[in-house]
Amino acid sequence: MTELSNIAKNITPSAMQIALNIPDKHKYISFALGLPANEALPLSLLKESAVLCDENSDMQYSPPLQLLKSQIKNLVKERGIHCEEDEIFLTAGAQQGISLLVRLLVNEGSQVIAEELVYPGFLQAIQSVRSSIITIPSDYMSGIRLYELENTIKNYYKKPALIYIVADGSNPLGVSLNLENRKKLVLISQKYQIPILEDDPYGLLYYGEKQYPALKSFGAEDVCYIGSFSKIIAPALRIGWIIAPKYLIPKLSVLKESSDIDMGTFSQRIASNFIKGNNLEDHLPFVRKLYKEKRDFMCKCIDKYLPPDIKYTIPENGIYLWLEFDKSVDTEVLFRKARDQKVIIIPGNSFSSRGEKVASNCIRLNFSFSSAEQIEEGIKRIANSLDKTI
Amino acid sequence: MTELSNIAKNITPSAMQIALNIPDKHKYISFALGLPANEALPLSLLKESAVLCDENSDMQYSPPLQLLKSQIKNLVKERGIHCEEDEIFLTAGAQQGISLLVRLLVNEGSQVIAEELVYPGFLQAIQSVRSSIITIPSDYMSGIRLYELENTIKNYYKKPALIYIVADGSNPLGVSLNLENRKKLVLISQKYQIPILEDDPYGLLYYGEKQYPALKSFGAEDVCYIGSFSKIIAPALRIGWIIAPKYLIPKLSVLKESSDIDMGTFSQRIASNFIKGNNLEDHLPFVRKLYKEKRDFMCKCIDKYLPPDIKYTIPENGIYLWLEFDKSVDTEVLFRKARDQKVIIIPGNSFSSRGEKVASNCIRLNFSFSSAEQIEEGIKRIANSLDKTI
Repeated sequence: MTELSNIAKNITPSAMQIALNIPDKHKYISFALGLPANEALPLSLLKESAVLCDENSDMQYSPPLQLLKSQIKNLVKERGIHCEEDEIFLTAGAQQGISLLVRLLVNEGSQVIAEELVYPGFLQAIQSVRSSIITIPSDYMSGIRLYELENTIKNYYKKPALIYIVADGSNPLGVSLNLENRKKLVLISQKYQIPILEDDPYGLLYYGEKQYPALKSFGAEDVCYIGSFSKIIAPALRIGWIIAPKYLIPKLSVLKESSDIDMGTFSQRIASNFIKGNNLEDHLPFVRKLYKEKRDFMCKCIDKYLPPDIKYTIPENGIYLWLEFDKSVDTEVLFRKARDQKVIIIPGNSFSSRGEKVASNCIRLNFSFSSAEQIEEGIKRIANSLDKTI
Repeated sequence: MTELSNIAKNITPSAMQIALNIPDKHKYISFALGLPANEALPLSLLKESAVLCDENSDMQYSPPLQLLKSQIKNLVKERGIHCEEDEIFLTAGAQQGISLLVRLLVNEGSQVIAEELVYPGFLQAIQSVRSSIITIPSDYMSGIRLYELENTIKNYYKKPALIYIVADGSNPLGVSLNLENRKKLVLISQKYQIPILEDDPYGLLYYGEKQYPALKSFGAEDVCYIGSFSKIIAPALRIGWIIAPKYLIPKLSVLKESSDIDMGTFSQRIASNFIKGNNLEDHLPFVRKLYKEKRDFMCKCIDKYLPPDIKYTIPENGIYLWLEFDKSVDTEVLFRKARDQKVIIIPGNSFSSRGEKVASNCIRLNFSFSSAEQIEEGIKRIANSLDKTI
């Protein structure tokens, strides 16, 4: 047996990956993964965009497409971000953005700040550079506790490498920070000179009247912003982007070259043709409406089928609901009972950034992927499984 | 200014990346990059393969396609490799294969074995884990010197983590190992229990009557094999593969998840439809014929326009020619003179795996990308530049 590196020994599969690899997956109702709805994936328009590619060089290696960067520059104005093309760096989805920024900014043995409950892909990126996380508790209603954040930084013996945050429709809590907290958070980052890594896959998926501006809009030089087409167009494009201070871009470029050379030209052309055809103008409102309906329907089912002592907040962004059961419920048991009934949920502790059981009575539910019928049937089965755990 | 990690400080752009970013690139004749010919990129067939995708889920996240793995399993039989689907791991091109295997097997501070002149993407992968290279000299005709390899391993105070090698159409030398040396190399790897990382982007691009079997075919458990569609179908697909012992696959999967989640579904479907339509059967012989003609034509031009004391070996595989000038020629000067005449070549020292000037009188020329007219004109200008350096 070949000996593995310390990184390989250290890194663990996420709960998502385990869920993705369940055999006979199509027989299950899945509230587990962060998948867009299949009906929200604009296959025909993307195929039309593909057919428009008419140069053999669309299949060649190439530097990142300037046109696509300009289109992203326009798109993020909706997030309150005003940047130049040379501050935009294209990545193979948001996860690569996280992974490259972590490799850019975080040393082995150093520490980063994240919420107690955090996106597992960030945990993996941190494991892969053998760094560790200083955890900050979050309020299930309002997100990261800023008083505790500042206190932790002030009392910590050395400067953490970065603060990781999903400010809109956070994963797993589904929380969007209010305007005041956004400003406060950026001020803390500036005061202690700790860069923010703002992971923003869901900012454009808002369900209220308006969206909050991204953290990046309050502190251009202090925030490295990560966006993606995965949730708003299609994951299969594998296109995301980093918006970062200009001087960081060449280093990101070398790190990406060493990882996978560069972006796929064809996929960039398809995305660019799709946007050029003004398809986003119709597609984004369609997706928002679809997910808002699914969110509302899932809430209705929860109210109807689950016990009245369940707590949850209706998310203003994103694709996740966070459910808090009575303290007596062990959601790792609930996970297994539900799985027996062919429903997949993710227990709260799977998101714990320090391996401790900080959310044993919580689960995360994805509401974007399943149909209304599946949502109703799935919640019923969870209710049924819950009876069996008590 | 945000402080960078040690990895980010350490890693350097490759000569390729610098060449790719030359402004007004279209005004230059480039022998620099390892690009397939544009006319060898089957745009129409790939668009047809794209249009065949008829499920919205082709745009969704998904686990790697089993069908594509089966097709790769069949394809690598041509390389003498007999493996199962569950030994195949799909990657975003060969570079990601290198990067993931290095992260899987190499610790910070440990050492790996590679030739004195090596593919710069491997150097970058090694820099990004802060490992270093024990260099083995190569013969420009026959490749890595196996006597020195074994001697180095025997006398080295600890076991190197792996041996990196391109056995067919090596980069930069263009050498293919003969059958006897292939067997010897695998025996050395087995004797000292050091895994081989066989990087094989060019194995299927052979120009003689027959190809040599891959190293992997002589030592299934001891060789991690890397292949790719980039040079035989199209780089824009961003699809490569690792063939490794089964027990390594789940770890590779976690490392990839932390890097970029997984493969793009659409791109996999396109490649799979392309192969299913029996297009490779015609395409591969077409590409081989095209590149053989280009290779022969470049050799003819070298013989015609460059001084008779120039040495080179006609490569049996791949896309590179290695030219050795008289000792008095400094190819870093030649590079600049040629660039002034709008021809891009890569000086030999750019491939040095230990930063030393081991190939100051050599250059690497790519013959796959340029047209016959460009090849002739480019070689003439190199001859002209050479006159000016003497």
